[in-house]
Amino acid sequence: MTTGVRRRMGVEERRQQLIGVALELFSQRSPDEVSIDEIASAAGISRPLVYHYFPGKLSLYEAALKRASEDLAARFVEPHEGPLGARLLRVMRRFFDFVEDHGPGFSALMRGGPAVPADTDRPLDAVSRTNALVDSVRQAAYVQILAHLEVQDPPARLELVVRSWISLVESTALIWLDGRRIPRRELEVQLVHDFAALAAVSAAHDAEMAALLRRMFGNEPGDGPFADLVTRLVTLAS
Amino acid sequence: MTTGVRRRMGVEERRQQLIGVALELFSQRSPDEVSIDEIASAAGISRPLVYHYFPGKLSLYEAALKRASEDLAARFVEPHEGPLGARLLRVMRRFFDFVEDHGPGFSALMRGGPAVPADTDRPLDAVSRTNALVDSVRQAAYVQILAHLEVQDPPARLELVVRSWISLVESTALIWLDGRRIPRRELEVQLVHDFAALAAVSAAHDAEMAALLRRMFGNEPGDGPFADLVTRLVTLAS
Repeated sequence: MTTGVRRRMGVEERRQQLIGVALELFSQRSPDEVSIDEIASAAGISRPLVYHYFPGKLSLYEAALKRASEDLAARFVEPHEGPLGARLLRVMRRFFDFVEDHGPGFSALMRGGPAVPADTDRPLDAVSRTNALVDSVRQAAYVQILAHLEVQDPPARLELVVRSWISLVESTALIWLDGRRIPRRELEVQLVHDFAALAAVSAAHDAEMAALLRRMFGNEPGDGPFADLVTRLVTLAS
Repeated sequence: MTTGVRRRMGVEERRQQLIGVALELFSQRSPDEVSIDEIASAAGISRPLVYHYFPGKLSLYEAALKRASEDLAARFVEPHEGPLGARLLRVMRRFFDFVEDHGPGFSALMRGGPAVPADTDRPLDAVSRTNALVDSVRQAAYVQILAHLEVQDPPARLELVVRSWISLVESTALIWLDGRRIPRRELEVQLVHDFAALAAVSAAHDAEMAALLRRMFGNEPGDGPFADLVTRLVTLAS
């Protein structure tokens, strides 16, 4: 039986709907500028009913950040088939899809903290939970890349290249969001090229990294992004 | 007149002493693990006397972070003389001196938040003040680099290269601190090489950046870090 024209939702279904509505609003404005009233109104329910499904603003915000983090981490998963450069480029495209879709929500997530409402009890716990969520996304990216490179026990220099490149990707996305003054398609390719460039610098300093680099990039095709970088650099130098 | 063997310090002198003592302790352990009792004991004064100079734990911590930030920003200042690569390398050396001297305090500063005591009123304001302090250090580094490159009105792609490289430097330092598994001397040179590599990738995609790169690196000497990178890459490729 229903009490009106609107179909009654189950608890979990309603929670998922509210999370979706919140993320939609966070894609337009920073989470700390979005009120529970707006979320209730966009979901077509009353403010008290939102609090029935989420005990406080923070718990809804954290559920939304958690879903966004899981969505982002899932985009790093790429079949282990074909050349590495093309795989990395596909991941960068999906990453920028996420960044473009989530805009202010992504910035808030990556900068930590701002998503925490000012009236929260134990707000520092909330800040550290947000930081832990961001770290888990970074770790997911790191684990995926090592798996594609087929390295089980990474030497310190490879770990440094991969982790510092991940932070370069983050900061590039945040800078891009601030005005979008460079076409994202160009940045997606450039970040793949940056990975190769940082790996090459490390390999230019260390024999073990040089051997790894040869194995990783040795079979890249002439029409892939790594060959494209070499062609571009040769043109630049000439 | 003095009341004991210890010379009486003026208010400002005592405040500076306490800040110095706090920074010394933060170089051994994270600020959130260091108590006011320890700072008082290391400074040879009573706990209530510390509170006479700093109204709360947070105000002393923030004063210490502020001094450390100013110290760090000051290390980016380099005479506008001689080749660019050598200037950048000297800055990287002073930066790693700072990172090595401050260890856990640097990590806490860069990660934001952890320096805020749990019993603070309005802790989120404190988190945003810490974030603003870190951003001001990043901005100081950015302004210095543009001045050395003699660029007044940076195109978006140059801004991206410089700002994303600064974030690469930060993350490299944080990763280095976690185990110090790579010699810092190697990382100092590599970060200079990374700057050239990221600029080269950007120049390989954009004519304006290519022209800037030629002007910036065109007069680098054969024994400087940029020529060293080219030599190393040629060796790697052969």
